[in-house]
Amino acid sequence: MRILVVNPNTSPSMSAAIATECRGAARASTTVDVLNPRRGPRSIESYTEDCLASAATVELVMEHRDAYDGYVVACFDDPAVRALRELVRGPVIGIAEAAAHMASLVAAKFSVVTVMRRSKPRLAESIERAGLAGRCGSVRAVDLSVLQIEEDLDATRAIIAAEARRAMEEDDAEAICLGCAGLGPLDKSLQAELGIPVLDGCGCAVKLVEACVEYGITTSKYLSYAAPPEKEYVDWPVFDTAGAGQH
Amino acid sequence: MRILVVNPNTSPSMSAAIATECRGAARASTTVDVLNPRRGPRSIESYTEDCLASAATVELVMEHRDAYDGYVVACFDDPAVRALRELVRGPVIGIAEAAAHMASLVAAKFSVVTVMRRSKPRLAESIERAGLAGRCGSVRAVDLSVLQIEEDLDATRAIIAAEARRAMEEDDAEAICLGCAGLGPLDKSLQAELGIPVLDGCGCAVKLVEACVEYGITTSKYLSYAAPPEKEYVDWPVFDTAGAGQH
Amino acid sequence: MRILVVNPNTSPSMSAAIATECRGAARASTTVDVLNPRRGPRSIESYTEDCLASAATVELVMEHRDAYDGYVVACFDDPAVRALRELVRGPVIGIAEAAAHMASLVAAKFSVVTVMRRSKPRLAESIERAGLAGRCGSVRAVDLSVLQIEEDLDATRAIIAAEARRAMEEDDAEAICLGCAGLGPLDKSLQAELGIPVLDGCGCAVKLVEACVEYGITTSKYLSYAAPPEKEYVDWPVFDTAGAGQH
Amino acid sequence: MRILVVNPNTSPSMSAAIATECRGAARASTTVDVLNPRRGPRSIESYTEDCLASAATVELVMEHRDAYDGYVVACFDDPAVRALRELVRGPVIGIAEAAAHMASLVAAKFSVVTVMRRSKPRLAESIERAGLAGRCGSVRAVDLSVLQIEEDLDATRAIIAAEARRAMEEDDAEAICLGCAGLGPLDKSLQAELGIPVLDGCGCAVKLVEACVEYGITTSKYLSYAAPPEKEYVDWPVFDTAGAGQH
Amino acid sequence: MRILVVNPNTSPSMSAAIATECRGAARASTTVDVLNPRRGPRSIESYTEDCLASAATVELVMEHRDAYDGYVVACFDDPAVRALRELVRGPVIGIAEAAAHMASLVAAKFSVVTVMRRSKPRLAESIERAGLAGRCGSVRAVDLSVLQIEEDLDATRAIIAAEARRAMEEDDAEAICLGCAGLGPLDKSLQAELGIPVLDGCGCAVKLVEACVEYGITTSKYLSYAAPPEKEYVDWPVFDTAGAGQH
Amino acid sequence: MRILVVNPNTSPSMSAAIATECRGAARASTTVDVLNPRRGPRSIESYTEDCLASAATVELVMEHRDAYDGYVVACFDDPAVRALRELVRGPVIGIAEAAAHMASLVAAKFSVVTVMRRSKPRLAESIERAGLAGRCGSVRAVDLSVLQIEEDLDATRAIIAAEARRAMEEDDAEAICLGCAGLGPLDKSLQAELGIPVLDGCGCAVKLVEACVEYGITTSKYLSYAAPPEKEYVDWPVFDTAGAGQH
Repeated sequence: MRILVVNPNTSPSMSAAIATECRGAARASTTVDVLNPRRGPRSIESYTEDCLASAATVELVMEHRDAYDGYVVACFDDPAVRALRELVRGPVIGIAEAAAHMASLVAAKFSVVTVMRRSKPRLAESIERAGLAGRCGSVRAVDLSVLQIEEDLDATRAIIAAEARRAMEEDDAEAICLGCAGLGPLDKSLQAELGIPVLDGCGCAVKLVEACVEYGITTSKYLSYAAPPEKEYVDWPVFDTAGAGQH
Repeated sequence: MRILVVNPNTSPSMSAAIATECRGAARASTTVDVLNPRRGPRSIESYTEDCLASAATVELVMEHRDAYDGYVVACFDDPAVRALRELVRGPVIGIAEAAAHMASLVAAKFSVVTVMRRSKPRLAESIERAGLAGRCGSVRAVDLSVLQIEEDLDATRAIIAAEARRAMEEDDAEAICLGCAGLGPLDKSLQAELGIPVLDGCGCAVKLVEACVEYGITTSKYLSYAAPPEKEYVDWPVFDTAGAGQH
Repeated sequence: MRILVVNPNTSPSMSAAIATECRGAARASTTVDVLNPRRGPRSIESYTEDCLASAATVELVMEHRDAYDGYVVACFDDPAVRALRELVRGPVIGIAEAAAHMASLVAAKFSVVTVMRRSKPRLAESIERAGLAGRCGSVRAVDLSVLQIEEDLDATRAIIAAEARRAMEEDDAEAICLGCAGLGPLDKSLQAELGIPVLDGCGCAVKLVEACVEYGITTSKYLSYAAPPEKEYVDWPVFDTAGAGQH
Repeated sequence: MRILVVNPNTSPSMSAAIATECRGAARASTTVDVLNPRRGPRSIESYTEDCLASAATVELVMEHRDAYDGYVVACFDDPAVRALRELVRGPVIGIAEAAAHMASLVAAKFSVVTVMRRSKPRLAESIERAGLAGRCGSVRAVDLSVLQIEEDLDATRAIIAAEARRAMEEDDAEAICLGCAGLGPLDKSLQAELGIPVLDGCGCAVKLVEACVEYGITTSKYLSYAAPPEKEYVDWPVFDTAGAGQH
Repeated sequence: MRILVVNPNTSPSMSAAIATECRGAARASTTVDVLNPRRGPRSIESYTEDCLASAATVELVMEHRDAYDGYVVACFDDPAVRALRELVRGPVIGIAEAAAHMASLVAAKFSVVTVMRRSKPRLAESIERAGLAGRCGSVRAVDLSVLQIEEDLDATRAIIAAEARRAMEEDDAEAICLGCAGLGPLDKSLQAELGIPVLDGCGCAVKLVEACVEYGITTSKYLSYAAPPEKEYVDWPVFDTAGAGQH
Repeated sequence: MRILVVNPNTSPSMSAAIATECRGAARASTTVDVLNPRRGPRSIESYTEDCLASAATVELVMEHRDAYDGYVVACFDDPAVRALRELVRGPVIGIAEAAAHMASLVAAKFSVVTVMRRSKPRLAESIERAGLAGRCGSVRAVDLSVLQIEEDLDATRAIIAAEARRAMEEDDAEAICLGCAGLGPLDKSLQAELGIPVLDGCGCAVKLVEACVEYGITTSKYLSYAAPPEKEYVDWPVFDTAGAGQH
């Protein structure tokens, strides 16, 4: 099985970390390619960046349309996930929904712990889009930027662990979803420290793509995720290359 | 007062129709400029097109950042509205939310009538994002494409009127929101025909921008819609021009 | 355009303050008349007072039926708003719904700050009736009575500001709706102090009536807000004057 | 035990029918007095009539404040119920909430069947106010006025039975709440005919008042239903008689 | 009238306390029998115990099928209530739903106070199953086990009272439901101490069974609670005795 | 990896069909054992049968406590799933939640198609318990009993296919979950026929157990699913064997 994981931002070090996470979770027979768009923001911490990164992600996947058995979008905003579902046959899974689905299988209630308070509504919306808001006790944020996470991963772990404990105590969180692809490398050490399931959406999404592909389901092409209607796209060469329109 | 209305698709005839609608609704002292992105799909009927049009809309507004008192996004998907709120000071209003808010003031329950069945979940999400799903009795679609609307506006009116009557009878709709900017020119004639309020989001959004500006409120910059953090955007010149990042 | 603003309580000083607020928000070409019922409670802080003031408001508007282009009910309980919609053609807007709709256009989440803890459920219900409970982060109350507000407006401002800051910090409020017509005069100074939109429903409602009238929609008379059926009203002269019944 | 049942409209024949229903349901040791206001509409089929009847009901109960062990409001709008809770110690129960609570004890899902399509949202709101919207499969209306019910009770029964059968078949209704006090006399014959529980809120409310009083609970006076603050009521003699204010 | 109250656990001292509560609430003409299963856990504090006690409760009631006018299940998990509704004609009421329904009649918002933090989601689900989650402000737990309650009832009362006061102050609780049958004996003394309604589900359920029976409704046998289809039950003699299946 | 699949009813032919489904979905390196309780109903079509089968399932798994890496409960009621989570370390997944989670990954909206109309609320509750009610467009039933499914699988397929098409047309279902373990063998042929994903919860649950185990998460033992407290179980030998209590 071949899975394409897209890191929607343009930070190569984050792509590398995501690759490690995803390959660690994948089975031996699964090939995981990790790519990021050639253009766009270094990290996604706003609706603006989400918009631009979403378009860049769509462009990137158009170049690899149906070249993979399944696709993962490795940002907790789940950017462009539904657009990609229109474009490819194989399952497309965002890491927020992946973590939320898996957490719901092993805990009555989970909390999301992330960086940047301003991101809370965007992440909450990812969970809601997955349909699982009722299982999510809280979305909590610590005062770090996405790019600061990697700078001192040990310090980050301590800060995240403290916030997770508050979620356990105050919000009755029985599992923790790490609300940023950059936090993925912390999953197992935090799980050991906290004593409850800690989920990195990257690993979860790879497992869920494998599950869908092996069980034999692909994205429904009836209604919401049907291929976009053929039409003219003005001045958007990557998309035109895919044959969706000329001008 | 100066309002920039963005038609997020690249169909100039639709931009022209939108301009007529918006200027018809605006007060004499309000200047309405209508622009559409230089690139992107001719119409928006899928998540993919929404993604690309959203990025193009962000690019366009970046060129006119804070040059207007308020902004309207003239597509019932309300694409990029929250991104634009991060970028400009003045209010930014999508036509779906505009129609839903105004309809809620004059009717206990409204229905959205639109073209293309596949668009129903995207439009329903616009209403939900506005927070007004509880006031929306149904989202109904007729079997037309966005670009077919203009081809025979009289035929379109008859088809939309029939569907609206079904919403009145079966879903207890007391007002109708027209679920596509292209349907805007039909608002007054349908209203006369149906005997209940019929709302074109373009007109509604212009009135609501005027209301916000005159009352003296601008988009909150606390939390969700704060300006995006300064950072590097790889290979995205329009955005770099705005000074948000270099590479 | 002519708007009738009803202050549903019998406090003339509050009517005067409301008039200042509403006229400040209205356009030059809009005439705003402010009236209060001749009978009823001095302020509305309970369901009982809401009931009596609602009936008195209905009586008052019956005397001015269709004499105005639109109507505002200036109490955050939004008393009698739906009854008035049955009685007149023009739009009828309560100040709670007005503030909630306008706040939703400029903030992802708003909080209501009001006086009197016991009023919280009544005010929350106004927001819910508007359909916007999902956008309301909290309804918070400080320990003042409605009539104390005016006694020392500076002290009131300090107390309200402190509560609003708690809403910002603890409930992620990005805008504040002032939950009592009496707090209206504080909107601009609090907005300056807090740095986020602060909304007085009186000003908002006037702007929204203007928006509806100019856009050309009136209250739907299909189903919920159809005129009351003709029938006998025993011993209710004002209502009989309106021709709705004899006895 | 003494229960005051208020028929909030001014139709003596309906008061008589309500008295029969309530006394039929009450235990031998329970005294049931049925009163209606001296003024107000003959029936309640609109928000306007609800407003006026609510005030008249408040006035009436003020004259009998704490003279009874419990109170019933016999209209499916549940008008003034929360106001009365502020005014008296004993439990106050509306017939809509009563029917909804009792139906929830014997059926997974109930439907309300009523007269007049325009009343549907008002009745749905009664159920929602009771907190039981999730248990209500539908509110259905037949094309009769409240006062027509009594004119030919057999014809009414046949029409209501047909609509109830549709609720059973199409909405999976397992019990039927009769959505108008005037329909109360039909409960047992319809129950026999349909083979599922059919509930008249008048009977239900009497039983629930008895249950509350015997179990030893009265309306909570903490927060929502505390007695209204003492204050001046301008020109409202009945209320002033009760000592709540002078002017 | 004859009511069977089942204590689903096997603690005879709790059955005795429940009997006192239920008989105290019942009318003189009501006979209350209290039984507990011959097998199963001494108390119910987990899903596992709920499962086993549910089966034992079903077995017990099968032996007394239709021998009573109504049935009460005296555990705040409301175990097996819906199964019993399939098996008997008379109403079957769980103490959680009973307390929630009665509290909703006398308070705008109630809180549940119980023992054992782990039980919170199970109890919250009882309230949600009743359809009354919207009326429940919080489920709060103190750090006691079910069997510790009886050991020092005075100490228990102090601990519960303190938690109830926090619910009043922090969650705006206007009434308190005692979230365990073992807490029932505290209802009246806590009510006196707190000054708001305090409800023991045992007493409430008895009153509601009496109300249903006297009003003349029994469990709907249409759809959800129809008698189980006749079929073979392997090796389950009590159930076979009832004639539902052979093997 | 070793997975125990429990068929909670006592129908060996259904256990055999489930084994075929589960083994077909499992990876080569996964061992799947399928067991059913020694006692209990032949099929589960009521709350009563659910209760008894749940207890029997708990007893069965107690005998195999922690002998497997993960557990599947193969009935669309998801009986006893939460109890089993308290008893074992490995993930425990019901087939209803499994199908709902997987369907949500490949479709915006799914419908459940099952046998027996009376089962609709029980199945809807399984989906709600999973937290995914918002993604479920409808639960539809055809007029067959569980045991009739196997009698003529071709006839069953035709009936189910027709109902699924109605879900697609009327409820906008983009995927179909088969609402009974007995329907599992139809998944691939129905999927081919309908052209949208058709999910058998048995296959889905096996894939999700594999995903959880490989990713390295087990059931959270914090709060809801902690092991049941040690205590006495009267006369319940299987449970006593497990050391949880003596008497």
